Amino acid sequence: MSRKPGAEIFVVPEPLELELGGSLHDVEVAYETWGRLDPVRGNAILICPAFSAHSHANSGPQDPSSGWWEGMVGPGLAFDTNRFFVICPSLLGGSYGTTGPSSVNPDTGEPYAGSFPLITVRDIVTLHIRLLDHLGIERLYAAAGGSLGGMETLELGVRHHGRVSRVVSISGTATTRPYTAAIRHLARRAILLDPEYHNGFYEGDGPVEGLKLARELGIVFYRSREELNERFPWTPIHEPSLGGVTFDVQSYLRHQGRKIVGSFDANSYLTLSLAMDLHDVYRGESREEALRGLDAEFSIVGIEEDRLIPIDEQKDVYEALVAAGVESRWRGVSSHIGHDAFLVELDAMTALLREFLE
Amino acid sequence: MSRKPGAEIFVVPEPLELELGGSLHDVEVAYETWGRLDPVRGNAILICPAFSAHSHANSGPQDPSSGWWEGMVGPGLAFDTNRFFVICPSLLGGSYGTTGPSSVNPDTGEPYAGSFPLITVRDIVTLHIRLLDHLGIERLYAAAGGSLGGMETLELGVRHHGRVSRVVSISGTATTRPYTAAIRHLARRAILLDPEYHNGFYEGDGPVEGLKLARELGIVFYRSREELNERFPWTPIHEPSLGGVTFDVQSYLRHQGRKIVGSFDANSYLTLSLAMDLHDVYRGESREEALRGLDAEFSIVGIEEDRLIPIDEQKDVYEALVAAGVESRWRGVSSHIGHDAFLVELDAMTALLREFLE
Repeated sequence: MSRKPGAEIFVVPEPLELELGGSLHDVEVAYETWGRLDPVRGNAILICPAFSAHSHANSGPQDPSSGWWEGMVGPGLAFDTNRFFVICPSLLGGSYGTTGPSSVNPDTGEPYAGSFPLITVRDIVTLHIRLLDHLGIERLYAAAGGSLGGMETLELGVRHHGRVSRVVSISGTATTRPYTAAIRHLARRAILLDPEYHNGFYEGDGPVEGLKLARELGIVFYRSREELNERFPWTPIHEPSLGGVTFDVQSYLRHQGRKIVGSFDANSYLTLSLAMDLHDVYRGESREEALRGLDAEFSIVGIEEDRLIPIDEQKDVYEALVAAGVESRWRGVSSHIGHDAFLVELDAMTALLREFLE
Repeated sequence: MSRKPGAEIFVVPEPLELELGGSLHDVEVAYETWGRLDPVRGNAILICPAFSAHSHANSGPQDPSSGWWEGMVGPGLAFDTNRFFVICPSLLGGSYGTTGPSSVNPDTGEPYAGSFPLITVRDIVTLHIRLLDHLGIERLYAAAGGSLGGMETLELGVRHHGRVSRVVSISGTATTRPYTAAIRHLARRAILLDPEYHNGFYEGDGPVEGLKLARELGIVFYRSREELNERFPWTPIHEPSLGGVTFDVQSYLRHQGRKIVGSFDANSYLTLSLAMDLHDVYRGESREEALRGLDAEFSIVGIEEDRLIPIDEQKDVYEALVAAGVESRWRGVSSHIGHDAFLVELDAMTALLREFLE
């Protein structure tokens, strides 16, 4: 729960006004870069991280450890650092160095904790635009991301005309639907029910049991039925018990749950979870108004087996863009991994990104 | 959490030996009946309840309140009491009068609570066979059920040759798969994490917050994405908040969660949840051995939108039966309700049952 070792910090000089009201000041953005910005500042690509990801998309000179999109950023790779200057910032509201609930509130000297304001994907984008301003990047060559990252690229492309030339949105959505909100509601409930939650004002890792359950629940939607049914035995691996592990798939879930503790703050989980529920690139406008006159090229990717944000929602984005006369491409991909395919199916993602970034 | 007012009690004279070891004695079965058993005892139909259901499938002279399958049992209805004698027992391990964790252990004079043994669907069937013996029913005209009820009818048809002529299994499965076990694991975890659980030895309703969350989670799989997305608004209905209700779908889930408290015991939830995970009609035999020489006719129904036990699993049962030379029928139904369609789409269920029971 801290800045990644290779990240730089930019302290935003102006307060950040938030969409739902209130503002944050002395906001810090932790970000990493790969490659070199060309003299006309036209080769920058913004990688937008998913929910529990961060600035460390890939290893690099400043931090040789593997990133969450390892193998995607470097010379000759999908985000080719021989050509591009690649930027990946950690998320507002997250736990990786960009201001979030575990950051110290400059007004009090204490962590924001339960007092951190509600934020939206629009706020996340606003902050990243400030970072681009700071770096002197008027117009991105591209912005790319999956899941929450794919929501962010859409928000950026739709709400910030002229700031990006190519938008790549994988397994994202333009507007969260009730079913996906229901899933995230369950995960937040797990954290909120943990007696260690204390309205967000906890010591240490706080509601770790609730956080683990939230993560275990997430996995069931991030991955696919096909994958779990192929990967795990169908018969018990231990003596059956109500509280222990009877089936191997339970060990897998428990392991995934434990992994999140100590790396991702429960208040960040809640904050970003609700931000995704509230995501709606059309908020305040009609679809037609929102999409009118966009000059970026949009590449929309959906995964057929996605159980969290189904492929229909990505198709819907693509169709709305086409109807609005926006230059757009559509790719449906089949992967038994499901929603998480963008993190796992790196050959397929590399092929798509090469095509989109040409 | 008690016997339904119209239910009769049969106290099984012999101990019930359990599949996973141990036994229960003085086991009580709460059951309701509709219609009259004919002189040759050949017109009996067993309705097998789903997970949180009970003996009160339908209103009747003994209990005029609506049942969980109201409109299905009566003169001229799907289970036509002009022709059939219909029996519906509450489930072993449940909370509705048949022996379960909230029943008093005759050895101690205290409720079994956390000491209730682990049971399987095979045990549930064994107990219902005892009830049929008591009622003098050698061979059922039919057994029908959905979800856990559909698992039970398969178990009955496959493991008790000669005791049933027609098996109707809706949204059931022959063998639980890891993905469905993962879902139930999450629900059990919610209960187990509630500090009021106390290893099952709780006072009153016990871990109600965990139980509510388990139920809310269940609903997301019992119903379909299509239904929730059509039924609920996509934009917030209240000021956004981390802990409260922002979206209408959250009110719905919370309401469903609250409804289970006081009617279904958390220990029953755990016990029957694990029993479903362990369900495997082939356990101890090969498929071929298990299905050889079955003389019942099997009618298998799957719902295309089922997110808990997908239609592939029902098709798999049908194909295995056909491969074994068993007389079988297959019906795939589309319903935006999803898994719960058997409880909601009563016209469609009536049409199917009429056909199967001819």
